[in-house]
Amino acid sequence: MGIEAVKNKAMEIAMKIKKLGQDDPRRIIHSIKVGVALTLVSLFYYWKPLYDGFGASGIWAVMTVVVIFEFTVGATLSKGLNRGLGTLLAGSLGVGVNYLANLSGQKGEPFVLGIFVFLIAASATFSRFFPGIKARYDYGVLIFILTFSLVSISGYRMDEFLTLAHQRLSTILVGGAICIMISILVFPVWAGETLHNSVTSNINKLADYLEGFGGEYFYCCEDGEHGVATEKDKSFVEGYKAVLNSKSMEDSMANFARWEPKHGKFRFRHPWKHYLKIGSLTRHCAYQIEALNRHLCPQLQTQDPSQLRRMIEVPCKTLSSESGKALKALATGMKAMTNPSPSSQVHLNAAKSAMNDLKDSLKLTTAQTTNLLAIIPDATVASILIEIVKSVEDLSEAVVELSLKAHFKSIEATVSPEKPQLLHKGTINPFVEAEDEQPHVVIRVRGTEDEDLTEKKGSSGTTSLPT
Amino acid sequence: MGIEAVKNKAMEIAMKIKKLGQDDPRRIIHSIKVGVALTLVSLFYYWKPLYDGFGASGIWAVMTVVVIFEFTVGATLSKGLNRGLGTLLAGSLGVGVNYLANLSGQKGEPFVLGIFVFLIAASATFSRFFPGIKARYDYGVLIFILTFSLVSISGYRMDEFLTLAHQRLSTILVGGAICIMISILVFPVWAGETLHNSVTSNINKLADYLEGFGGEYFYCCEDGEHGVATEKDKSFVEGYKAVLNSKSMEDSMANFARWEPKHGKFRFRHPWKHYLKIGSLTRHCAYQIEALNRHLCPQLQTQDPSQLRRMIEVPCKTLSSESGKALKALATGMKAMTNPSPSSQVHLNAAKSAMNDLKDSLKLTTAQTTNLLAIIPDATVASILIEIVKSVEDLSEAVVELSLKAHFKSIEATVSPEKPQLLHKGTINPFVEAEDEQPHVVIRVRGTEDEDLTEKKGSSGTTSLPT
Repeated sequence: MGIEAVKNKAMEIAMKIKKLGQDDPRRIIHSIKVGVALTLVSLFYYWKPLYDGFGASGIWAVMTVVVIFEFTVGATLSKGLNRGLGTLLAGSLGVGVNYLANLSGQKGEPFVLGIFVFLIAASATFSRFFPGIKARYDYGVLIFILTFSLVSISGYRMDEFLTLAHQRLSTILVGGAICIMISILVFPVWAGETLHNSVTSNINKLADYLEGFGGEYFYCCEDGEHGVATEKDKSFVEGYKAVLNSKSMEDSMANFARWEPKHGKFRFRHPWKHYLKIGSLTRHCAYQIEALNRHLCPQLQTQDPSQLRRMIEVPCKTLSSESGKALKALATGMKAMTNPSPSSQVHLNAAKSAMNDLKDSLKLTTAQTTNLLAIIPDATVASILIEIVKSVEDLSEAVVELSLKAHFKSIEATVSPEKPQLLHKGTINPFVEAEDEQPHVVIRVRGTEDEDLTEKKGSSGTTSLPT
Repeated sequence: MGIEAVKNKAMEIAMKIKKLGQDDPRRIIHSIKVGVALTLVSLFYYWKPLYDGFGASGIWAVMTVVVIFEFTVGATLSKGLNRGLGTLLAGSLGVGVNYLANLSGQKGEPFVLGIFVFLIAASATFSRFFPGIKARYDYGVLIFILTFSLVSISGYRMDEFLTLAHQRLSTILVGGAICIMISILVFPVWAGETLHNSVTSNINKLADYLEGFGGEYFYCCEDGEHGVATEKDKSFVEGYKAVLNSKSMEDSMANFARWEPKHGKFRFRHPWKHYLKIGSLTRHCAYQIEALNRHLCPQLQTQDPSQLRRMIEVPCKTLSSESGKALKALATGMKAMTNPSPSSQVHLNAAKSAMNDLKDSLKLTTAQTTNLLAIIPDATVASILIEIVKSVEDLSEAVVELSLKAHFKSIEATVSPEKPQLLHKGTINPFVEAEDEQPHVVIRVRGTEDEDLTEKKGSSGTTSLPT
């Protein structure tokens, strides 16, 4: 029994390790990269010519590798540069202070040094509370305090601080260079790319929710196997929740991305800050979805559908699924770094017109009911959906702004993203079919992009959830 | 002009420094503490007897102080213990591996060592991806890799790794002890206390919003100087926004608090995890307030108040302000670590009865209006407020649970927090006065607590915003 339990525990841990690696194989690669970097650095000890050059201070290279090798290139660069700069500044300051302390004679030296160490450590520590410094130079200031203390204190004893400073600097340079090279050259993990993918995937999660919401909320209005639908749609209902707390991760990725050189489709000065704006708008929309989601609880849905619910069903479903498709098209375009596709604008317009339909049907409702309480859930859902269209529009504008700032490729030069002249080039027939089919839009474009666009429409059609 | 500009810049920075210190004076104290700790540690160099004992490895003590001295006691303890444990484990493993490598002869030694360094560095790096390890032992694993590499690599050259390991350990112990003692004994900043205060202050922020909301939303229904009111109430409208992104801070504080010994009113094993639950419920409520807040925009309010708005005004105002008062009473009790005061339950009950009033008036509405769209904002506000009562109740239950788990003091032994027998001991007269006065509840209790409670009622009355 005891052996059985140990076996089970071991199996469990093995499964966990496997899952962790499968979820993100870059983790395994990163671990191997750290192992390789450390083994390379140990050459300083194993290989005699190198050892003779650097001596025992090769341990600084080992320390540098362990401490600065981070998961993303940006974090590694940021730590490496912070460490290099902090050491350099503190080293020169330490030399200066030592010179000053020497002037004050044998007795006064420790006092002068002590006062300097106290003052500089205290003020540098205080500077770490500045939000700007904390976000980007926290590690540099730490290393500054460390190096300054070491150089000035050991300078008092050893009288060879110049050697110490020089050895430290050169080994840090070597260790840092090995880290940065391995980090960049061997299967690099870019913070910028991670941020880009995370922001687009968050938009996608909202899109999934919105595409699925209409079918889920109104399912009781239809006959058929809703049990199956809820089973299948569970995933989209939970997806958006990860967006709610995405701020801190996005902030740190944006900070790391600033340090990264040109990679893939990203320039050196890619507008990473703008991703934070898009992220914040995405979260804003996620809060609205959180409000919407509270109305998906079963006890609200088992009630007999009210007259109002029947009336708002079609515009609400269209609004929600078109908003979702608009977001999905935005996310797809953003991910591929092309200008926002006209289809996102088309879906947004469809969502807006559904919003107007919804408003119209609400306006024209002769509310015969004497029980306003019964229709309040539906009225609230309608109200939140109307707000969501505004959020989607804001998000769309922010993505357009990003595409301009980051010089995204345009798919077609004659189509400006704000006012799609596509509308004048082809025909758009919004039509609503029988109740059991989701309303959709058929776009026909005269020109060479014909195939491309219909294909896009087709693919977004297949990802939409059955209603 | 140039001098003027420099002067202005310097003034600006000085103001920023002053503000940073004023916002949280603990920052200044922390900086001074770090300075003192470093100056103490430099005694290892200045004072001859100590230097003779530790030699040049006193730099490890300096390094330890700089690296592990964090703002809160919990973070310092966590880093210190991680560093100590990581060094100890890696040191003994390093000794073992060195012994193994020695067996394989002069030629084989570097290969065996290299393979071990690679394997252990790679697998330890991978373990840092486990969420549980990342949250609590990340630094320990880092130090483990570092120490293992240093001990095993330098063991190959120096043949004196035992001395190295021993010196490192003892200086780390001394440096760590200095940090931990200064951190705990001199104006300690406890992570647990910070978490406790931050969670209660977040509940307070929501309470402020709810207490103010009614007056703000319905101000156009009343005559008088609403301009002044909006000016004055600006702060409460923004306060809740800080709650939305509070998760990462609370998570890390809860992780640090686990390491802290008994302090103030907190035991060693205070249920810190439960604060995360309360924090998450608080954020849930903040999302609802975010939805509510969207209806405070001016263009919605300048419209002529609808019939519905006039009708729901009184119950909505009561509901919102009573929910706010219930939260405030909860936060006050929680902050003082006393059992949830009966007054919070009284306010919650008042909010619930206002919710029923609201539901009743919605039910009885003969919706004469033919324009449902016009009343949708009011209906949505009513619907969100109804949901907020549920959230406040959940929050209240979670606080009661905490008070049981953490053995909060009770103010009166005969009053159980769930079913306040107070109701049977005294009289509660909810009454609603003329429109210009806020409805409130008068509580009279027979017994010794009389003065206490009426005072509480009085003070909560003064903090409520004028409607």
